[in-house]
Amino acid sequence: MATNNCIFCKIANHIIPSNIIYEDDDVIAFLDASQVTVGHTLVIPKKHYENFLATPHYLISKVMIVAQRIGQILIKDFKAKGINILTNCYEAAGQSVMHFHVHVIPRYISSDGFRLEFMENQELSNLNLPAIANQIKDKI
Amino acid sequence: MATNNCIFCKIANHIIPSNIIYEDDDVIAFLDASQVTVGHTLVIPKKHYENFLATPHYLISKVMIVAQRIGQILIKDFKAKGINILTNCYEAAGQSVMHFHVHVIPRYISSDGFRLEFMENQELSNLNLPAIANQIKDKI
Repeated sequence: MATNNCIFCKIANHIIPSNIIYEDDDVIAFLDASQVTVGHTLVIPKKHYENFLATPHYLISKVMIVAQRIGQILIKDFKAKGINILTNCYEAAGQSVMHFHVHVIPRYISSDGFRLEFMENQELSNLNLPAIANQIKDKI
Repeated sequence: MATNNCIFCKIANHIIPSNIIYEDDDVIAFLDASQVTVGHTLVIPKKHYENFLATPHYLISKVMIVAQRIGQILIKDFKAKGINILTNCYEAAGQSVMHFHVHVIPRYISSDGFRLEFMENQELSNLNLPAIANQIKDKI
């Protein structure tokens, strides 16, 4: 599944250098070259999967547990006030590199470079939530 | 650890009704009462943990695997074009309910109610990334 042109495959295989924080047989974590905030880290499986939705369960677990550990360190030792854990699936959700990666984003001040907004949408206030819930439930 | 005033504990215990999508002994998933987009779901452990950073590994895994399944359904059956998977730790990161929860946010059009921005920060362009990576690595 590894793709010749995938930059994260190249990082995982040490073909492209990165600032590595953690590495084992399955997972590698490294600083995002574009630091949104200081310590902004990406955690990825070494093997190529397009995104979170396409990744086997055991690798989802391994990646998330490494992300948790790094988040804990950023709070304790970097004095971050908060952490966002984020993974985007497909371009419509902001995914830019098509290799599953989890962002660990430490937050120090509210005026930093990361913006997250849940905007109220009046059009969605009259949704039939029980019907939507049932539609999803039926497929699980 | 369950807190009397935690709204998600009350949802997990069916004291407050919600639009449930999935439930097992450890995990419950329900529609966010404020739908940022149609199908916006929260996945939580039933037991109370403050956030992702404080949650045991096996529950992180279970919650994330349910989130993955719901994301897959929203793509396949709701025709979402993308999915954001997000969990916020502490108020500084936007956490509002202090019970670990993962947002599954389907994206249909770019002008929907969810905004995610990684802003370039010139001040961070001169960081000593190898030094920061080593600082984190030393603590893992």
